[in-house]
Amino acid sequence: MGIQVYGFWRSIASFRVRAALRLKGLPFEETSIDILSGEQFKPDYEAINVERVVPTFIHDGHSIFQSLAIIEYLDDIQPEPRLVPANPKERAYARALALVTVADAHPLVTPRVRNHLADTFGADAKAIEQWGRHWTTEGLATYERLLTQRAPAPFALGVEPGLADICIAGHVITGQYVKLGLNAFPAVAALSDRLFAIPAFASSHPYEQPDFKATAKH
Amino acid sequence: MGIQVYGFWRSIASFRVRAALRLKGLPFEETSIDILSGEQFKPDYEAINVERVVPTFIHDGHSIFQSLAIIEYLDDIQPEPRLVPANPKERAYARALALVTVADAHPLVTPRVRNHLADTFGADAKAIEQWGRHWTTEGLATYERLLTQRAPAPFALGVEPGLADICIAGHVITGQYVKLGLNAFPAVAALSDRLFAIPAFASSHPYEQPDFKATAKH
Repeated sequence: MGIQVYGFWRSIASFRVRAALRLKGLPFEETSIDILSGEQFKPDYEAINVERVVPTFIHDGHSIFQSLAIIEYLDDIQPEPRLVPANPKERAYARALALVTVADAHPLVTPRVRNHLADTFGADAKAIEQWGRHWTTEGLATYERLLTQRAPAPFALGVEPGLADICIAGHVITGQYVKLGLNAFPAVAALSDRLFAIPAFASSHPYEQPDFKATAKH
Repeated sequence: MGIQVYGFWRSIASFRVRAALRLKGLPFEETSIDILSGEQFKPDYEAINVERVVPTFIHDGHSIFQSLAIIEYLDDIQPEPRLVPANPKERAYARALALVTVADAHPLVTPRVRNHLADTFGADAKAIEQWGRHWTTEGLATYERLLTQRAPAPFALGVEPGLADICIAGHVITGQYVKLGLNAFPAVAALSDRLFAIPAFASSHPYEQPDFKATAKH
């Protein structure tokens, strides 16, 4: 049986899983769950994903949620090309780079948080964009310091792109959403240019997804 | 050379690393970095942790940040007792359970977010506590649904406590910070009772740390 992904064009976590699958050369079908309109909260989807988030990955009838867990699973079931290095110290560094956005920066700018800021503090669109810029800048600045301390060669962990690169690329897309330029982050910008020159990254970008293109036509 | 941790009593990520080290039986020394007063932003500490967060783990002169990366590293350097299961599907489930709080619920209630809510929206202590309760409740409700779908036996992944249990226990502590009872979450409450009966968990609780006890004396 094939691989099925429930995702959404705008979801950065969905981008991560798409890019990982394409780096592995694993074909998949993606079903769009519109998290902007709240489709993830419908009972049909909750039966698929108890946390009510995207993405969900289904393979041979087995379901996995959380993008990092999915990407690590891909390495477990098809080790080559590796997305997480084999060396323990390098594995730890790859995961730490990933978690800068997965555990620190990105959770603060998801739709449920933007909605809650509006509901709780009456934040308007401008205030919510400022909020998004603040936390996205924090993440970019952290990546800039890290990539300056240990320069990509040419990718974050070495000669092949992997988990860390996928997560950094996702954070760069978050920056595009809140109209942040990368001028202040030259090391991130250079890595991002290299990554989005790779078809697996470029074709996984939110604006290349069929559900985005369908929306943009309206 | 021994293991050195830079942490803080109140930090849930520091709790996770402490509990993991104790489950492994690995001795360590912890240095307190007061993240409530902003000690993590001082140049001395930035030289240790470029992201300016706790915890930092140092072993044989090698430094690792991000609690999940540290815990996975412990499994790599000392496989027994395993904190992440060996089976790929079980590993994925353990990581997904961990990420419910690490990537979704917990990042929203850290000091830097509480401070930014006050600075940006003028949120007072009551509004900030309400914010914390909202996101902590979301995480507890997700855990309750997950633990109802697959009951702990007796721990989240089976007969031994591991990564998922550590992260769920940390989320329960977050609930204590914002004075949330567990009455609405009986499966979480039952698992939490089992976990905090284990010395590795009980002795790692924030209120058992020397830097908390020093503060409480003032």
